[in-house]
Amino acid sequence: MRIALLGGTGDLGNGLALRLAAYTNHDVVIGSRDPDAAHDAADAYQATLSERGRDVKVTGFENAMAADRADVVVLAVPPYAVTDVVDAVASGLHADDVLVAPAAGMRRDDDGFRAHLPSAGSVTALVADAAPDDVGVVGAFHSIPAGRLADLDADLGIDTLLVGDDDRAKRVVSGIVDDVDGLRALDAGGLANAAEVESLTPLLLNVARENDGMRDVGVSFR
Amino acid sequence: MRIALLGGTGDLGNGLALRLAAYTNHDVVIGSRDPDAAHDAADAYQATLSERGRDVKVTGFENAMAADRADVVVLAVPPYAVTDVVDAVASGLHADDVLVAPAAGMRRDDDGFRAHLPSAGSVTALVADAAPDDVGVVGAFHSIPAGRLADLDADLGIDTLLVGDDDRAKRVVSGIVDDVDGLRALDAGGLANAAEVESLTPLLLNVARENDGMRDVGVSFR
Repeated sequence: MRIALLGGTGDLGNGLALRLAAYTNHDVVIGSRDPDAAHDAADAYQATLSERGRDVKVTGFENAMAADRADVVVLAVPPYAVTDVVDAVASGLHADDVLVAPAAGMRRDDDGFRAHLPSAGSVTALVADAAPDDVGVVGAFHSIPAGRLADLDADLGIDTLLVGDDDRAKRVVSGIVDDVDGLRALDAGGLANAAEVESLTPLLLNVARENDGMRDVGVSFR
Repeated sequence: MRIALLGGTGDLGNGLALRLAAYTNHDVVIGSRDPDAAHDAADAYQATLSERGRDVKVTGFENAMAADRADVVVLAVPPYAVTDVVDAVASGLHADDVLVAPAAGMRRDDDGFRAHLPSAGSVTALVADAAPDDVGVVGAFHSIPAGRLADLDADLGIDTLLVGDDDRAKRVVSGIVDDVDGLRALDAGGLANAAEVESLTPLLLNVARENDGMRDVGVSFR
């Protein structure tokens, strides 16, 4: 499968690109607003993988071109940008493509991080509202620490929850997640349940902040 | 330490009573609005423990009398009842007692469970508002499945997050939690972070509902 990581030059894009390209047979395409930044990031990821003896092609394109080439499009961009990015790439989304929303609305103050949900109820709902009707939308990767993904020597042993109303799209994302050693996908139900899933991101940042040795903490449901 | 479980005849009270009495040296006191129900539950827990060769005394009292006897008071009652119960037992709370709030505000519809927070921001904040000033309040046990606690043969290997502004009270609760094999306490920060912690309860219920074999699922931060 071909997976585009829009905002693929950021932390989560970096982590997902390296893990997916290193440990699965999926094609990874990096997207960015700036095509030069996308090329450069793709080259850098490819070089990192090559140093580890993994010779795979990672390509980089402007976001809409990256989306156009992919079956699965991950919106690894800040929550306030998701609607604009979906609009910008809509022409590159085809019937039965899958759009993945990992962003969580949150704010930070002196006490820590907390959920700050958009009026749509969740960022996943924002994406579902903005997406073409024939594209499946799945919220995922909210509890996956980007730094740990990017460290290819780090053990994972953690889960991500999938949330959304399109069961076929959830199965596609579940398959990709389960292809990565140490990652497991679990179903958290329909779009109406997305707020609780997205609240895991500030929760994990608070746990990381308050406990020694938990900088890149993830979660395992057991 | 002496631990009162108010609402100790319910599911979480049952689970905590059995685990604490079976596997720690803390004294367990069951509280209920109805003193007869408290006595009966205490006798039943004691009988269960005795059958397993663990001869410990579990006592039962009306809520205020139970609280009066304890150093740590767990409000194992529904979220809508916490304020009334704190008011009802206030005369039995002494300086430096610790009040533990495990309840989560939530609602259920056809799609699953979701957080439904009180206007105070969290149930823990409701309890903190209602509690005497010299009593420490800690939110805890939101991610601990009651049924698994009550099954003394079930492995735990799961965490609970502690949230609140009173560090001494959090240390007391952390010590009790860590006395139970397979349970670990982690700090989730101050009271302002309680909403995300309480949102774990509906999240876990959704995960249990949507995935086979996860009926009494808990969570491990790793």
